[in-house]
Amino acid sequence: MKKVCIIGCGAIGSLYAAHLARVAEVWAFVRREDHAQALNREGLRVSGTHEFTSKLHATTNPADIPDCDFGIVATKAAQVKESFQPVGRRFDKGSVLSAQNGVGSEEIIASLTRGYVIRGTTFMSGTRHDDTHVQYELATATWMGPFELTATPYSVVKEAADLINASGLKAEALEDARPAQWSKLIFNSSVNCVSGLTGLPHSPHFADESGFDGLGHLLHALIEEGKAVARAAGIHLHEDPWEMNKIGAMTNHPTSMLYDVRHQLTTEVDFLSGAIAREANRIGVAAPLHSAIYRLIKAKESSWKFDEENKPVAAAHT
Amino acid sequence: MKKVCIIGCGAIGSLYAAHLARVAEVWAFVRREDHAQALNREGLRVSGTHEFTSKLHATTNPADIPDCDFGIVATKAAQVKESFQPVGRRFDKGSVLSAQNGVGSEEIIASLTRGYVIRGTTFMSGTRHDDTHVQYELATATWMGPFELTATPYSVVKEAADLINASGLKAEALEDARPAQWSKLIFNSSVNCVSGLTGLPHSPHFADESGFDGLGHLLHALIEEGKAVARAAGIHLHEDPWEMNKIGAMTNHPTSMLYDVRHQLTTEVDFLSGAIAREANRIGVAAPLHSAIYRLIKAKESSWKFDEENKPVAAAHT
Repeated sequence: MKKVCIIGCGAIGSLYAAHLARVAEVWAFVRREDHAQALNREGLRVSGTHEFTSKLHATTNPADIPDCDFGIVATKAAQVKESFQPVGRRFDKGSVLSAQNGVGSEEIIASLTRGYVIRGTTFMSGTRHDDTHVQYELATATWMGPFELTATPYSVVKEAADLINASGLKAEALEDARPAQWSKLIFNSSVNCVSGLTGLPHSPHFADESGFDGLGHLLHALIEEGKAVARAAGIHLHEDPWEMNKIGAMTNHPTSMLYDVRHQLTTEVDFLSGAIAREANRIGVAAPLHSAIYRLIKAKESSWKFDEENKPVAAAHT
Repeated sequence: MKKVCIIGCGAIGSLYAAHLARVAEVWAFVRREDHAQALNREGLRVSGTHEFTSKLHATTNPADIPDCDFGIVATKAAQVKESFQPVGRRFDKGSVLSAQNGVGSEEIIASLTRGYVIRGTTFMSGTRHDDTHVQYELATATWMGPFELTATPYSVVKEAADLINASGLKAEALEDARPAQWSKLIFNSSVNCVSGLTGLPHSPHFADESGFDGLGHLLHALIEEGKAVARAAGIHLHEDPWEMNKIGAMTNHPTSMLYDVRHQLTTEVDFLSGAIAREANRIGVAAPLHSAIYRLIKAKESSWKFDEENKPVAAAHT
């Protein structure tokens, strides 16, 4: 039986862990001791689209984790380095899937293991009710492909995708996962940052181009700019992010960045608009709008730490 | 003795009213009855750079206001129409100074009176302690010039500036006030909107261009874009807004839009970045960044009214 380790058990990590525990020996590497104890004691329950409870091994101690055939890093992008570092070498003879939003996590994972890294973009969705109960909502796929820098063979990707499919989740192995990843990157960067800056969930405003002040104009411009960067980088998109935006704008879904902003948590912006802006800068094309929203979100993060004792030095009529 | 009416007695309106009451018969047209009563009973005290108390007439009833020689509209830009409409015709034989941030208020004032309209841009600053006490802080000038659509003669502007100077405040009459107004417009649009979106006061971040994520890059780009729109509109700026930004960024001043956002009040964005974006659109030049921050602030205003009952329709991994 294959040994699998899930790093991080939020909604997405819990869905992977519970499903894979039906077809593999699953270890969950988590941050909180009470989380690990609850999983070991009660198992992990899935409700919603699927209904079952799995047994698995959970720990906060990296020394407990055996050498694994396969790993999935399911933390937020900003936590990948801190959470994967202690266990990276357990995958030296296996492969590791990056399931983060945006791009840039694969590079971090590859720096911490000698194993093969797999690009991943997941459209799965779940609601985490508590430490041992996750609700499976959208039975949508994880798209997977080789990460170039570790020269991951397609057969390794296919094997990992087969395991995920066997577990009851959906995965699709692709020869090149960048078109899928960039489609979602552009969509996610535009929608998340605008949501975090405006305080709006993914609401009909995001597709509204009726008036001069319509927010849809901005989303459209951000998406067109992202597509131009992808084109210049030689990536032919898998889906049109504007169509994804129009569909999402009907859901009133509170985005993950809106959640982060409301709770003053470090956002994933460095892996979203920041990644688009840096890639544009690297290849020498303009990305003024993604650069703008990237810098606005970074400054918003700074505002939470900005000492309230930084009193005004002088008054001005601004 | 000249009859003068100040419309709106916040910090700026109170400074004008108290000073002008030393050289003219001053009427204050205010919104709250208790505000009017307090002013009539106690007068209006100035502290700080100047120290004195003035007597004046205050009212909430437009019928009380006599025909005036001169008026100053000192409300926020978004309140000009509502507050000036009831008394506009009292200035049919006089002149009216617009003291709002941004551009676009003169057009509204001119639609409500047959008097001469004067473009104004004030750098005065004060703190309003209560209804009858204002602190005068920066003894900086109000720049004034003819409004083109009412063909205001320069002599009318000069007469009004002389009256303000005689009262102890500073005013400068200009043949063309647009370069001064646009310098401050570009400065104000960039700084206020970024402050409102990030939650930061006008802090050193606004001039920080050290890293790729530095907010100073965005301020610089916004200001350059604003300057390009001004150039295309045939306006040669009075001062460089980037220099104004560098100085202001040392003050940690909480901007007026930050105040509005924190209190969920309608902002002045239509008269700031919105005005730049619309002018750019009118003359056929690009202003993607001012358009972006304009639409973000408008969407932020919408978020306050967005029914929290607009529950998510479906979950998504965004």
